[in-house]
Amino acid sequence: MKKCLALSGGVGGAKLALGLSKILAPEELTVIANTGDDFTHLGLDICPDLDTVMYTLAEVSNRELGWGQAGETWNFLEALSRLGGETWFRLGDRDLATHIARTSKRRQGASLSDTTRELCGSLGIEYPLAPMTDDDVKTIVHTDNDQTLSFQHYFVRDRCEPRVTGFHFEGIENAAPSLTFIAALEDPELALIVICPSNPFVSVDPILELPGVMDRIGSTPMVAVSPIVGGQAIKGPAAKMMNELGMPQTATAVAEHYVQKYGCALTGFFVDTEDAPLQADIQALGLETIVTNTVMVTLQDRIDLAQQIMDFANRL
Amino acid sequence: MKKCLALSGGVGGAKLALGLSKILAPEELTVIANTGDDFTHLGLDICPDLDTVMYTLAEVSNRELGWGQAGETWNFLEALSRLGGETWFRLGDRDLATHIARTSKRRQGASLSDTTRELCGSLGIEYPLAPMTDDDVKTIVHTDNDQTLSFQHYFVRDRCEPRVTGFHFEGIENAAPSLTFIAALEDPELALIVICPSNPFVSVDPILELPGVMDRIGSTPMVAVSPIVGGQAIKGPAAKMMNELGMPQTATAVAEHYVQKYGCALTGFFVDTEDAPLQADIQALGLETIVTNTVMVTLQDRIDLAQQIMDFANRL
Repeated sequence: MKKCLALSGGVGGAKLALGLSKILAPEELTVIANTGDDFTHLGLDICPDLDTVMYTLAEVSNRELGWGQAGETWNFLEALSRLGGETWFRLGDRDLATHIARTSKRRQGASLSDTTRELCGSLGIEYPLAPMTDDDVKTIVHTDNDQTLSFQHYFVRDRCEPRVTGFHFEGIENAAPSLTFIAALEDPELALIVICPSNPFVSVDPILELPGVMDRIGSTPMVAVSPIVGGQAIKGPAAKMMNELGMPQTATAVAEHYVQKYGCALTGFFVDTEDAPLQADIQALGLETIVTNTVMVTLQDRIDLAQQIMDFANRL
Repeated sequence: MKKCLALSGGVGGAKLALGLSKILAPEELTVIANTGDDFTHLGLDICPDLDTVMYTLAEVSNRELGWGQAGETWNFLEALSRLGGETWFRLGDRDLATHIARTSKRRQGASLSDTTRELCGSLGIEYPLAPMTDDDVKTIVHTDNDQTLSFQHYFVRDRCEPRVTGFHFEGIENAAPSLTFIAALEDPELALIVICPSNPFVSVDPILELPGVMDRIGSTPMVAVSPIVGGQAIKGPAAKMMNELGMPQTATAVAEHYVQKYGCALTGFFVDTEDAPLQADIQALGLETIVTNTVMVTLQDRIDLAQQIMDFANRL
């Protein structure tokens, strides 16, 4: 059995995770989600990436919004607004159930991994989905006015408007990968690690920079799917960040970022057909470069990309 | 200026408080709500009586249900049910905003009085409404199988089915009346205390048994409105409790209960026209007994009863 470990941020990663789940059995796939952008808001523990992956795998995600649950309503938020509460973070009525159930379980002593397992079980998800860590790691965004912002304040409240100069992951030096993450990394049958098309700086880096992760990856083949297509991010601020960090807004620059940081393990890089002209440049970085459709609009797109990735793994 | 202090449980008390607010100015009326049935559920601080009074005074209460907000929706609860969460306590989507805002403020150190003042302000309530105490007092229901139940477990989860043998108010010996309650009691212009038509055992007793309350009431005239009409409680388990406690299910028995406990202060007792035959018995307890319509169906009913009470105060 060839086992696969998918590392995911939010929407883009969740789409590929769903595709992988359609062609792999539950014992062949583990999905680990970034928790660097988790935060406590209105007293509730909120895990945006973990929830996006969970809702996507449970097929209850809101496709129009790209976050939250399908058929969402907003009466809580409307009432909170009347009470003068903070409404910049859009908590839907259904979505609230997740945050309240999770916060309640965690206050009673359950770990984030435990609560995630329970929530996934209730939603009928058969695939192991776990947070990257059960410890507190907070993605902090540095901005050009020498300020720092917590990720959700940067991302949602300030709509990614501040110019970024860098990032750090508060608490990461004392954080351990979750037990599910460690078990997947140490599984002798692990054949492939997939870096999903997520934001390299704020979704993927926190996962791979956790102490002990790269050591455990060792020589396990790792592939990445570019989140940048034709110079744009499919979703989110990755391209804007690259520009502000002085990087070209290209799939090549994403590949360079990964090679510099995680070079020895990275084997293959998937770019969209639109970026076919970049293939030679990326090959020159020492990466086998696969040109295919990486823009996942339909479920079949997700499955096709997942299949291409597993075909690549089988050729190794 | 004749000032009035109303002591209230949930629905019945809230109706009379609204009536009083329609004929008195904000500086003439203070409303104090029972907090003995407050509880923490799913990590949220929930104050059923305080919220019922607040929603009623703000005229956003749900008249069909008798609790919660008008136009309520239940998507949170439906999603929580899918997640395997506890759904016996019906938290509406709009209602949740109150509990989340309150819990969040309190976790940051605000008192229940502070949060109530802020919430009331946001809802446009001009009348001072405060909890009876900022300390933890928990109404415990003793049942005939020698068990004890927290009030909401008895009242909502177990639908008042267990037979009650008594009550106690955990923590009351160390609780102090809220500052608003003390200020109203010590106001030299306080002319009347109104015990609203609420449950004597679990709504009124916790308020009056707080240390220092009866001392401060001293000889201030106090009137009560019977929550029992024609042998039935308008709402809630008061009549069932009286039966289980071996008391007649009558307005007279309510009057006796109050006279025994708070005798010296109690001056007048309001019973419904349906209970006119009981007038002589209640007079015999030393209480001036006013027979009038106490069943408040319309807003005008609430105002009329409030006016009768204030007329009584003016005659004193």
